Parts: sequence; C-alpha cells; structure tokens
Amino acid sequence: MNEGSEAKEELRRGLEGVLAAETRIGYVNGSDGKLFYRGYEINSLVEQSNYEEVSYLLLYGHLPKRGEYEEYVKRLREEMPLPDEVLSLIKNIGGRTHPMSALRTVISYLSVLDSMESDSSTKNQERIGISLIARMPSIVGAIHRVYSGKEIIKPDPELGYASNFFYMSTGARPDPVESKIMDTALIIHADHGMNASTFSALVTISTMADMYSAITSAIGTLKGPLHGGANERALKMIQSVGRPENAEKVLKVMTDKGERVMGFGHRVYKVYDPRAKILKRYAEYFAERKGNETFKTAQIIEELMINKYGERGIFPNVDFYSGMIYDAMGFRTEIFTPIFATGRISGWVARALEYSTENRLFRPKALYVGEKGPRKYIPIQDRD
Amino acid sequence: MNEGSEAKEELRRGLEGVLAAETRIGYVNGSDGKLFYRGYEINSLVEQSNYEEVSYLLLYGHLPKRGEYEEYVKRLREEMPLPDEVLSLIKNIGGRTHPMSALRTVISYLSVLDSMESDSSTKNQERIGISLIARMPSIVGAIHRVYSGKEIIKPDPELGYASNFFYMSTGARPDPVESKIMDTALIIHADHGMNASTFSALVTISTMADMYSAITSAIGTLKGPLHGGANERALKMIQSVGRPENAEKVLKVMTDKGERVMGFGHRVYKVYDPRAKILKRYAEYFAERKGNETFKTAQIIEELMINKYGERGIFPNVDFYSGMIYDAMGFRTEIFTPIFATGRISGWVARALEYSTENRLFRPKALYVGEKGPRKYIPIQDRD
Ligand SMILES: CC(C)(COP(=O)(O)OP(=O)(O)OC[C@H]1O[C@@H](n2cnc3c(N)ncnc32)[C@H](O)[C@@H]1OP(=O)(O)O)[C@@H](O)C(=O)NCCC(=O)NCCS
Ligand SMILES: CC(C)(COP(=O)(O)OP(=O)(O)OC[C@H]1O[C@@H](n2cnc3c(N)ncnc32)[C@H](O)[C@@H]1OP(=O)(O)O)[C@@H](O)C(=O)NCCC(=O)NCCS
Repeated sequence: MNEGSEAKEELRRGLEGVLAAETRIGYVNGSDGKLFYRGYEINSLVEQSNYEEVSYLLLYGHLPKRGEYEEYVKRLREEMPLPDEVLSLIKNIGGRTHPMSALRTVISYLSVLDSMESDSSTKNQERIGISLIARMPSIVGAIHRVYSGKEIIKPDPELGYASNFFYMSTGARPDPVESKIMDTALIIHADHGMNASTFSALVTISTMADMYSAITSAIGTLKGPLHGGANERALKMIQSVGRPENAEKVLKVMTDKGERVMGFGHRVYKVYDPRAKILKRYAEYFAERKGNETFKTAQIIEELMINKYGERGIFPNVDFYSGMIYDAMGFRTEIFTPIFATGRISGWVARALEYSTENRLFRPKALYVGEKGPRKYIPIQDRD
Repeated sequence: MNEGSEAKEELRRGLEGVLAAETRIGYVNGSDGKLFYRGYEINSLVEQSNYEEVSYLLLYGHLPKRGEYEEYVKRLREEMPLPDEVLSLIKNIGGRTHPMSALRTVISYLSVLDSMESDSSTKNQERIGISLIARMPSIVGAIHRVYSGKEIIKPDPELGYASNFFYMSTGARPDPVESKIMDTALIIHADHGMNASTFSALVTISTMADMYSAITSAIGTLKGPLHGGANERALKMIQSVGRPENAEKVLKVMTDKGERVMGFGHRVYKVYDPRAKILKRYAEYFAERKGNETFKTAQIIEELMINKYGERGIFPNVDFYSGMIYDAMGFRTEIFTPIFATGRISGWVARALEYSTENRLFRPKALYVGEKGPRKYIPIQDRD
C-alpha cells in the first residue's frame, strides 16, 4: 500500500537514480570521473582560481569581474569576525561535544542574532547565505582552537579565505604551499551534486524555511560516517593499521566482517574520484617532506581495495586522502568533517537558493508494509 | 544530463509520488481521508488512548501492556526535567528569535550534554530518541514562558504528558476538557507518512548521523510555512480577515494574486483531512464557550475555499483549525508550530529508528540543465 494514489511505483531505496531536482550549478560525471562547477572542470579551477571566486561562481553562474570580485571579497571580509555572543557560546560548548555538533549548534544559534531570520524572500535568504559562507572559517577555526584548549584567533583582513581559515585554526599563517593546498581542499569540497547534506538543505528550504535551518540540516547530515564523517574515520583506520605490512591482514578482517572501509565507494562515481586524485598528490607531497609511514600504508590499502573491489566500482573517494593532508597541516582529526563543511557551505547555499526560486515542497511517499488494520483498540487491562 | 548513469529517468519535482522508503509505522490514505498508526485508525486512538500510549505504539508496534506502559511513562517522567544549562540557554535566547529557531537550537545543544551523542548504535539512537520525546514538552513549555516574559515552570510529576505540556506552557493545570483536547492535538500530530520534516530526519540519519542531528533537521524543516509553519499563519490570516462578511473580498484578493491560503491543500489528501475534522469540532466547542467571531470567519473561509477549489482536491488541512484551539487554551501564536513539533516528535523518532535499522544513504541525482562546458578559465583581468 502506498499513500495517496494507487499508481504503481517501485520503491527507490536511498532514492538511487531518482532525479529529484534540476540544477545549473554543478555536474558530476560518475562514469568518466569528472566534476564540473557551472561548466568549469574542477582541475582548471584548482589550478587557476581560488575559493572566493569559486564560491561566487557557484552562487551567480559566472566568474566575477574585477569589481564584482572586490565587492564580494569585501562583503565576506566584513562578515567574518564573530559577535562576542557567538564566541562565548563556542567557549561554553568547549570540548564537550563533537566539533560537528558544536558547528550545527552555532549555525542554528546565529539566527538568534538576526531579527530578519524568518523572512524567506530570495534576497534575504541570499544575505543569510553569504554571511554564513563568510563566517564558516571563523566558526570552525574557533571551534578547533577551543577544542584544542587554545585561544581563539581573530581573522586577519590581509589574508584570503583559505589562508584565514588555516590561520584561525592552527594559529600560524600558512606558507605558500599550505595556502594553495588549503584553497584546493576547500574548492574541491565546494559542491557535489545531490549528495545527502545538500539534499537535506533542499528538503528543509522546500518548506520555505529559512537559510539557517537549511544549513543546520546540512551540517547534521554531513556529520554521519557514510558522508562527511568518513574523512575522520578513514585516517583513524589508516593509523590503526599502522604499518604497510599490516594492511592486508587488517583489511581482510574488516571485509570478512562485512565492514565498510571508510574513504572508499561512492553512489555516483564508479571510477576513481577526481577529487581523490588531486588530494593524493598533496598527501604525497607532505609524506615526502615529513616522511611518515601513513601515506605508504594508505597506498597499500588503496591497492588492496582496488584489487578486491575495483571491478565493482569501489575506489578511493574524496575522504580517503584528505585527512592525511589536514593532519600534516596541523588540524586535529575531529575537525576534518568541519573542514569539509567549510568548503561545502558555498554549494549548500547556492543550491538552496537555486531550489527556492522554483520551489516545490519535497514530499515523497512511503510504501506501507505494516499491519493493514483497522485494528481494534483494546483497553490496557485487557491486553495480553 | 544527469549524474552517473545515463538511464532515462524523469524529473520528479518535489518527489511527488516517489516511494522513498518502506514503513510499518503509519499509513495515510489520501483518497478516503483516513489516517492509521500501526493499523489503528486515528479516531479510535483519539477516543480511547493517550499520547504516551500512542508514542509507545509508534515506536514499538503494539499498544503497551500495563508493565510496559508504566515503565515507559516512568522513563519519560524521569527525563522530563531540563538540566540547568538548558534552562539558561533558553533564557538567554529569550524572545529574540522565533520559537522554532529557539527549539532547533536547544535540541542541537542537548548533544553537548551527552557524551554518547555520536554512538550510532540502534540502542543509543533509541535512548536519545526517548529522551527527546520526554523533553520536548519541557523545552517548548519553557520557550513559551520565556517568550511571554514569564517564569519557567518545572514539570509536575502527577500530570500526564499532554497535561504537563499544557501546564508548563500556560502556567495553569488544564481542566478535563482542555486536557483531552491537548492530548488529542498531540496524538493527531504524532505521525503523518513521509512529510517533509520526517523525510529530512530520515535523510540526516541515513548518513548514520546521530538522533540529535536528525531531529534538529526535522525541526528546521517543520518551521517553513508550507509545512508546520502554516498553523501560525492560518490563524493570523483568519484574524486579519476579522469578520465573516470580509472573507469573500479578502480571499478574492489573495487568490487573484495567486497567493496560497494557509491551512488548505495537501500533497496526499485530496479530500477533507481527517485531522482537520477532529480539530474543527474542538474549535467549535471553544467558540461556543468563549463566543468569538474567529470560528465563524474560519467557517466562511472554508466554505468559499471548498466551493472554489474543492473539485481540485483542496480542502482544509490539519493546520487550519489547530491554531484557533491553541489560542483559546492560552498559547501564543508563535508557539503553534512548536506544539506541532511536540506531537510529531514521536513519529520522527520512530521513523528515524525504523529507517536506520535497514539503512541506505539517501543520495538522489540532479538533472543538470546548465552550461555543458568544459568552459575555459579566463584570468580576472581578461574577463568582460
Ligand atoms: C558512500 C557509500 C555510502 C555509497 O554507497 P551506496 O551507493 O549506498 O552503495 P551500497 O551501500 O548500496 O553498497 C553497494 C555495495 O558495495 C559495497 N561497498 C560500498 N562501499 C564500500 C566500502 N567503503 N567498503 C566495503 N564495501 C563497500 C557494499 O557493501 C555493497 O555490497 P553488497 O552489494 O555486497 O551488499 C558507500 O560506498 C560507503 O559506505 N562508503 C564508506 C563511507 C565513505 O567513505 N563515505 C564518503 C563518501 S564521499
Ligand atoms: C501543502 C502544499 C504545499 C501541498 O501542495 P503540493 O502538493 O506541493 O501542490 P502544488 O504546490 O503543486 O499545488 C497544486 C495546485 O494547487 C494550488 N494550491 C495548493 N494549495 C493551495 C492553497 N493552500 N491555496 C491556494 N492554492 C493552492 C497551487 O497553487 C497549484 O495550482 P496550479 O496548479 O494552478 O499552480 C500546498 O497545498 C500549500 O502550499 N498549502 C498551504 C500551506 C499549508 O497549509 N501547509 C500545511 C500542510 S499540512
């Protein structure tokens, strides 16, 4: 039995293959392993652009001209510093909860300070969206600092988005290579089709709820280990394997038990994730510089996994190598998923805005397979 | 172009008609206007059961035996009082934001106090779910009090769930009729198929995120005027019409402008919403007792709307009469949607738990209709 009409429909578990919305923002080519933002291939953006431009591109459909760029960057810079009340909240939460839970709570709380929060006009939703893009690095940076027992650092207006994020998180200004890598990490995380967190933002905004609600949903959704939470777990797994020669044995135990290996597999990519390719190069760069075994171990795990599952289309995804890079740059493991969120915020906002301009409430159906009824109510004393 | 495979799929705007999951929890019969929880018709539960039983029924599939009931009620009672830190947060938020935003923030914050928050075992998710069911009336009650500039009231262990909610919100213990009506309102809001807020909870939990995240998403999603937010707006609209004789003119202006009339229409029901039928009776009860024009005005609006749109399947929904009842019982308009949430919490938790036991990541696709590319990156100085 399904709700409403009796039209014959098939159950679409996990909505695999279902086209849930139209978009002009990004395109994941899962069979060739390519990713496009507004028609630009991700590699060309990583090589030549920066996060501010990419964020603008996702929102407005074209790369900004000089004047547009300057105005957008100015707006981000102005919104970056956090109100004292938000800093207090972050300090008060402290290290008691997972940074993703802290982030979800802080984003939700920002609406308290915004008297226009419930105005669902596109203009206002856009305003909130841009302020969230601007504040994400400051919030995640502050959460990272407090979580590490360190002082919160204010943004440096001289630094760009990615460098500021690095600085507010680690306390050090990045060198040019670190700055480039941070920028790259944020760019490649910025958008990725109808992934679960983006989709949850769309479901939320489709009721004409506000942008704070939509992004709060996205963060909670990203937290799970089957989505953004995988990067944290992937590195922990690699580290627990420890040395290259242990990989085979540990993996066998995992796969025999039917456990999922974090950082592998994807609903859309059935080939090597183009983002993982980019990140792998940087992981190698740090491995050469800092010379540790983690990268070697990861490579062995990758080989073993591809031998075992490659034919079935299971390859490393964006979360497999990202953690190694963040780790090498001085980020704590628990902050990896918030870094993902800091990149993805632009995609979330852009897609939520896009959806709301041609809005339709998301309201699928469930296939009812329970007791048909009507069951007769029996008073409590007669139940057995 | 769609992501991944090139299989031919049609765009499913708003996922209308798509079967997104299996369920044994509830069934909405949209063509006959009937609603079932676990095979029990809603009317029989309203007449003979109470919210605690219904909540148990949704979670566990059967009405509780005496011992099960006592244990469940005891557990709810123990979890009901709020930690001081949560009370401080509610006071601190005060009246600065919409109560739904306050509620979303408080639910998200509860994870800070729970060292097990990220353990995604079913047992732990269930534990969190039950604690959220227990705390919802205390949180919404406290938000209502603070929003109204009044003192927060502690739960009275002698009162049942609905009466306690009434008491903590209004400051007065309900009379037997009010208690019955409050209970009824919570029961009929407890579950309703794959509505947008429930669906958002499922999308969030499908990444194996925690129950706090799932319920936080649901609250943000419920907030929108196309979903739970309609009850607040419906009463405001009826009140702004003012007198029965104004209804025709005001409605004409609205419908000529293509505006949606809040409290009417439904994706699944194409007949009179069975919940609206129940609530209408109670609205009438209060109208007779307190004798005001609002009910009469609402009736005229209903008649006019059914004459105009009834053939197209647009009838009053659950949100049209609920606000009038809450208003008569002493609730502020801004708290109507949180009341909806207080009922729906059991459905959210039950369905999120159900989904997570046979989990599959929600990850649909988007139909890409943007620039095909690959576009060539042009440096900023050369853009025009
Ligand atoms: C991302 C993911 C949820 C997408 O998978 P999906 O489209 O839902 O695919 P399914 O869960 O239906 O899995 C299909 C098959 O591949 C297997 N599989 C998928 N990912 C796997 C992994 N990482 N390790 C081992 N097996 C995996 C499944 O066990 C399943 O096998 P079966 O058909 O024998 O039961 C899944 O690959 C996964 O759990 N990966 C690990 C978490 C992760 O890295 N997430 C980040 C994604 S960016
Ligand atoms: C609930 C709701 C979103 C479901 O609608 P849906 O399945 O998405 O239907 P659509 O938005 O596609 O509407 C179908 C048609 O009915 C009309 N319609 C639906 N609800 C209407 C309403 N409340 N007032 C006026 N027209 C309405 C639409 O304008 C549309 O007309 P069109 O085909 O000429 O454009 C919609 O009825 C609505 O917006 N209602 C008002 C908000 C409300 O009360 N929500 C609480 C639901 S419990």
